[in-house]
Amino acid sequence: MNPRQVITGVYSAASTPIDAAGNPDLALFTAHCRRLLDEGCHGVALLGTTGEANSFSQEERRTILESALAAGISPDQLMPGTGLAAIPDTVALTRHALSCGVTRVVMLPPFYYKGVSDEGLFAAYSQIIEKIADNRLKIILYHIPQVSGIALSVPLVARLAAAFPDTVVGIKDSFGDIANMQALLAELPDFSVLAGADPLLLPLLKFGGAGCITATSNLVADSLRTVFDSFDDPAKAADVDAAQDRINAYRSLSNSYVQIPTIKGMVALKNGDDAWFRTRAPLVSLNATERADLTTKYAALN
Amino acid sequence: MNPRQVITGVYSAASTPIDAAGNPDLALFTAHCRRLLDEGCHGVALLGTTGEANSFSQEERRTILESALAAGISPDQLMPGTGLAAIPDTVALTRHALSCGVTRVVMLPPFYYKGVSDEGLFAAYSQIIEKIADNRLKIILYHIPQVSGIALSVPLVARLAAAFPDTVVGIKDSFGDIANMQALLAELPDFSVLAGADPLLLPLLKFGGAGCITATSNLVADSLRTVFDSFDDPAKAADVDAAQDRINAYRSLSNSYVQIPTIKGMVALKNGDDAWFRTRAPLVSLNATERADLTTKYAALN
Repeated sequence: MNPRQVITGVYSAASTPIDAAGNPDLALFTAHCRRLLDEGCHGVALLGTTGEANSFSQEERRTILESALAAGISPDQLMPGTGLAAIPDTVALTRHALSCGVTRVVMLPPFYYKGVSDEGLFAAYSQIIEKIADNRLKIILYHIPQVSGIALSVPLVARLAAAFPDTVVGIKDSFGDIANMQALLAELPDFSVLAGADPLLLPLLKFGGAGCITATSNLVADSLRTVFDSFDDPAKAADVDAAQDRINAYRSLSNSYVQIPTIKGMVALKNGDDAWFRTRAPLVSLNATERADLTTKYAALN
Repeated sequence: MNPRQVITGVYSAASTPIDAAGNPDLALFTAHCRRLLDEGCHGVALLGTTGEANSFSQEERRTILESALAAGISPDQLMPGTGLAAIPDTVALTRHALSCGVTRVVMLPPFYYKGVSDEGLFAAYSQIIEKIADNRLKIILYHIPQVSGIALSVPLVARLAAAFPDTVVGIKDSFGDIANMQALLAELPDFSVLAGADPLLLPLLKFGGAGCITATSNLVADSLRTVFDSFDDPAKAADVDAAQDRINAYRSLSNSYVQIPTIKGMVALKNGDDAWFRTRAPLVSLNATERADLTTKYAALN
């Protein structure tokens, strides 16, 4: 790995379980975080898109983060999403993380208004960083235009990294185009470019990337870790390829239906706990037909 | 008008002025609301897309609504936007409005996750209504897929209106396609279908629509009111057509640059107050070249 990249490794875009009353199931969540770390994740990127973060209130998000810390997970192992539509809300949620000793966050740009300029996005991130005014803060920018509706261009990322070199240290690129990640690394070789799409972990690492924050980590963290640890060891090329193939198979299965509920369904099947099937609206849990189909296909993978 | 439509009239999608420190300028805002009512608006649909609502924190949004009430504007004349990405936040913000005596709100669907099903959107609105559990509440659904990324289909709207006939009473249709509004009225003739796009006010009224919530009302509320009051009076057809032409001319000018900052610039020019040029990031105020061009073109309209 590049020793100048500040954040490297395999991070899980952890799913968030829901209890029968529709609230975050904190006991199940913290047990899941523990398991992800035991299976090889360097950390848990909780409260991202896969974690249904933007379906939870700010108070629920604070409680979810605090529950992980209360369960004994180190602040250094947690990387919550803290980007909301309104700058003051992003400032407040990020300050809360810092107040808990959590210094690394994944930050969406303001995502309601579309077609905004790079100038406006630069102003937004700048104001957020200047209002937080905490030099412990390390931000992973979050590029997921197919969901957020907002693309973070390479020139914008480069401008932010130049303006805030000790704070804006990386990007989660979930768009799924390796060419964009290569363009980022060509411009910023010491930037922590993290793959948001599982199939791109191995190719990204070969291009100098820093690791991943992905959904399939909820299921196959051990394989992601194998790829990360051994991608540059010729003696382990067969193991690495096999691990990436396994990751890709799980990823493909997770796209059988709407991805976030399907990932949760696969976690339910892995852990033998139907509670994991639940989602929060506007996402919808898999229906009976989908569950039956997924159960068959999941069994065939194992 | 159709007497069974619950909410009818001309409502302003009021712009929100920003002070030099970047906060909502409450004095300027309440003066603007008063002027909009004096110029003929039946009410102020504050904190919508044009009002940059989703760039303000929930606390700021509560303060903005409270400032209008404190300035003596009647709760019946205020129709705030209260739809946020997370259901519990929408519930809390709507409950706040109700606690102030404001019973009519414009409600976006949860807008972070894209491609969600009608089933998921129905569940989201249903849960919001059931959690609020206040039979005073009247909801105008908000269809603006080009910004929110979420379309409210005619079958979904019909299902919500059938399930909550005393609560889900209308829709602000800002997509700009008269055919969609006609389809809504064909299905739900007593539903308050309000045009979100100024050029469609007159045609919509002729098709049985209930009025409008538009951005150009910040500038030409009197003309919108002329159209609303006299659209079905053959003796006033020339006045009505002239008023709609004037509305359309202002609307066209507001599309010269990014619309929301341009509307604010036109309010600045109308009122002779440069403070109105300010926006909150990620939106960017008009630059000097744009201001000069807008100033010339605005003068030519008057």
